[in-house]
Amino acid sequence: MTDAKAVAPGCLTGVRVLDLTQFEAGTSCTQVMAWLGADVVKVENPVGGDPGRRMGDTKPHRDDPYFLNYNSSKRSLTVNLKSPRGLQIVKDLARKADVFMENFAPGAIERLGLGYDVLSNLNPGIIYGQVKGFGEGSPYENNLAFDMIAQACGGTMSITGHPDGPPAKPGPTLGDTGTGMLMLISILASLHKRKETGRGVRLGVAMQDAMLHYIRNACGVTTKTGKPARRAGAQSIMGNNPPCNIYPCAPGGPNDYVYVYTSRGNPQHWPRLLEAIGRKDLIGDPRYETREARVEHEAEIDAIIAEWTRKHDKYEAMRVIGAAVPAGAVRDTLELLNDPDFEERGILQTIQHPTNGPFKMAGWPVRFDGKPPVVKPAPLLGEHSSEVLKDWLGMSEEQVAALRTEKVI
Amino acid sequence: MTDAKAVAPGCLTGVRVLDLTQFEAGTSCTQVMAWLGADVVKVENPVGGDPGRRMGDTKPHRDDPYFLNYNSSKRSLTVNLKSPRGLQIVKDLARKADVFMENFAPGAIERLGLGYDVLSNLNPGIIYGQVKGFGEGSPYENNLAFDMIAQACGGTMSITGHPDGPPAKPGPTLGDTGTGMLMLISILASLHKRKETGRGVRLGVAMQDAMLHYIRNACGVTTKTGKPARRAGAQSIMGNNPPCNIYPCAPGGPNDYVYVYTSRGNPQHWPRLLEAIGRKDLIGDPRYETREARVEHEAEIDAIIAEWTRKHDKYEAMRVIGAAVPAGAVRDTLELLNDPDFEERGILQTIQHPTNGPFKMAGWPVRFDGKPPVVKPAPLLGEHSSEVLKDWLGMSEEQVAALRTEKVI
Repeated sequence: MTDAKAVAPGCLTGVRVLDLTQFEAGTSCTQVMAWLGADVVKVENPVGGDPGRRMGDTKPHRDDPYFLNYNSSKRSLTVNLKSPRGLQIVKDLARKADVFMENFAPGAIERLGLGYDVLSNLNPGIIYGQVKGFGEGSPYENNLAFDMIAQACGGTMSITGHPDGPPAKPGPTLGDTGTGMLMLISILASLHKRKETGRGVRLGVAMQDAMLHYIRNACGVTTKTGKPARRAGAQSIMGNNPPCNIYPCAPGGPNDYVYVYTSRGNPQHWPRLLEAIGRKDLIGDPRYETREARVEHEAEIDAIIAEWTRKHDKYEAMRVIGAAVPAGAVRDTLELLNDPDFEERGILQTIQHPTNGPFKMAGWPVRFDGKPPVVKPAPLLGEHSSEVLKDWLGMSEEQVAALRTEKVI
Repeated sequence: MTDAKAVAPGCLTGVRVLDLTQFEAGTSCTQVMAWLGADVVKVENPVGGDPGRRMGDTKPHRDDPYFLNYNSSKRSLTVNLKSPRGLQIVKDLARKADVFMENFAPGAIERLGLGYDVLSNLNPGIIYGQVKGFGEGSPYENNLAFDMIAQACGGTMSITGHPDGPPAKPGPTLGDTGTGMLMLISILASLHKRKETGRGVRLGVAMQDAMLHYIRNACGVTTKTGKPARRAGAQSIMGNNPPCNIYPCAPGGPNDYVYVYTSRGNPQHWPRLLEAIGRKDLIGDPRYETREARVEHEAEIDAIIAEWTRKHDKYEAMRVIGAAVPAGAVRDTLELLNDPDFEERGILQTIQHPTNGPFKMAGWPVRFDGKPPVVKPAPLLGEHSSEVLKDWLGMSEEQVAALRTEKVI
């Protein structure tokens, strides 16, 4: 994309975020704050930094895409939290911060001496956010959790996969990023309130609990049936309304499918679909005319649609059917990353990373007056240590140099 | 839960939301604003209201759980948008609103005469949010979309399901609620900025684009391999790090599995797991000692773990293994809804709905100073028409009665 198309909305300009997050659940939250203009200072261990930098099997001295995707537009400050001076620096930064965010293992931040009691005493206005695996008071509150554990315990896996198969994990990391987004909403709402009251708040969210927010439809099914919601393959958990499924397309690759849906709310969808696939002869056929009839003849309907879709590639199928009823090609990550449409619209942006080179990544998808926020590269480890200590704490070059010598930063 | 445990944080008290949303992508966004204290006025068609009220096959005069789950704590005002007087009322309300939100089909709100140009002219401070299926400038910008279409076109389906099977739709409605959360973040950030500038903004998000936000790990895999990220069943898309999978538990029902994960970052996990399942004899065995060795012997490892898990139910397995390494029972929606832990902690709350009776639902999972926001019932159709017209527009009882007689509300 050209810079002219992008605009930093700067909604959060002036908001200072002290970011002690790692991996994804916490970093995804502070990531968006950085995109929206906040000054997000990521505090990292001088030895290696956020372990997310080394996910996967990348070469030394190159940060993994996992890290780049969740830490762009942030600043990195290295601090040795095990040194008393380092800890003091974090406390001094907390006095200047609007938001503090962490997602260490349960109890770790409190053991470091950076719990809410301590920091809110230093800065009563601080908005203090914590993401954990399980909630305070839960039988598992001291357990570690990662995305997959939250998705197992939070119900998302039980409703994903094929009806006759085992549970599958939704590919999206809902346990991590899905939780991070709910925390961010709470932080921003708290910032709003703080403008009136001046007081901060302790915010906490458990990844398991957050999953319930995303499976409300399935819970609604259980409310009505008294039974667990079932896995539905590519169909909707909510109920039977054929066609509402994927149909195979040419040339038959693993993602060569088109989704076709006819809304039960719009009786014109079914005849429109028949017309689109050249089967006007079936319009009015009582075997398929009502939803109830289509439920009864679902296998026949699937065969009728697939007969047409198999002869077309998924994009052509989407173009033709999508002009008549809701339809969409199943797209894989390579197709998405290579689609110029996303770059032209600024949904994918290519950053120039100082050591990794050009890196194409998804930025914030919401547009502000038609334009997306600009994404800047993720920081190198400690890239902004000196700058941040000067900006936030007013330190001199000499003071920073001394901290380096003492291996505090 | 007892009321004493709940607290309305009221972060958004005083924020007025004019809510023209329906179904889920828009309603999920305004839902959270209502939970956080905003005055959310849902404008509905006097005949039937939000079609979400009638999802599924509920009896007449009962609102579906789908509606209750996304509209609690809101107020309902019926307005006939096809009458000039009704349209004028919505414009008058827009003058008083901080936020306007809609998710009609592309072009519909503009055809009604309630586009951003019109409303921002009446109220330059209005934050105007729109959720559509596809982005402005996309080849599909005029196409209708529902959750499943967004999940097909946005890549989430391509990475969900089993490696040798077709794509599956993640059970969670990421295309709807996942998009609604990103819009809400943008609204709250814009409210923050507006306190300085006084100016509103037009916010737009496409459900397809929003999906990219949730599949960044899979995109990172593609960046490294140059290939589409593959479906991984219950495993992580990010890579091969056994054990990282579900294991079958007694008594063998469709969701009787426990997730077991050993972090590559912690070399103690593997021996701790062996100890937990009574296989101390294998500690130090070179066949399984390193990650590389475990990748090579994955099938054996799976058999060793499953031998133990099959003899235990999933909760016992989670208790024993979870004390040693990250582990979690796969839980279904009935188990979750019936678990008193969620009620005690206010994550699930039971509302008393005037016609549906008691209804248990997930509220906002983030806690404010340890307490969750209170959930109030979803409104009956037009329940607050009179109240809202008085509160927001200062109408008299007689004026409201006249509007009723004229079938404007």
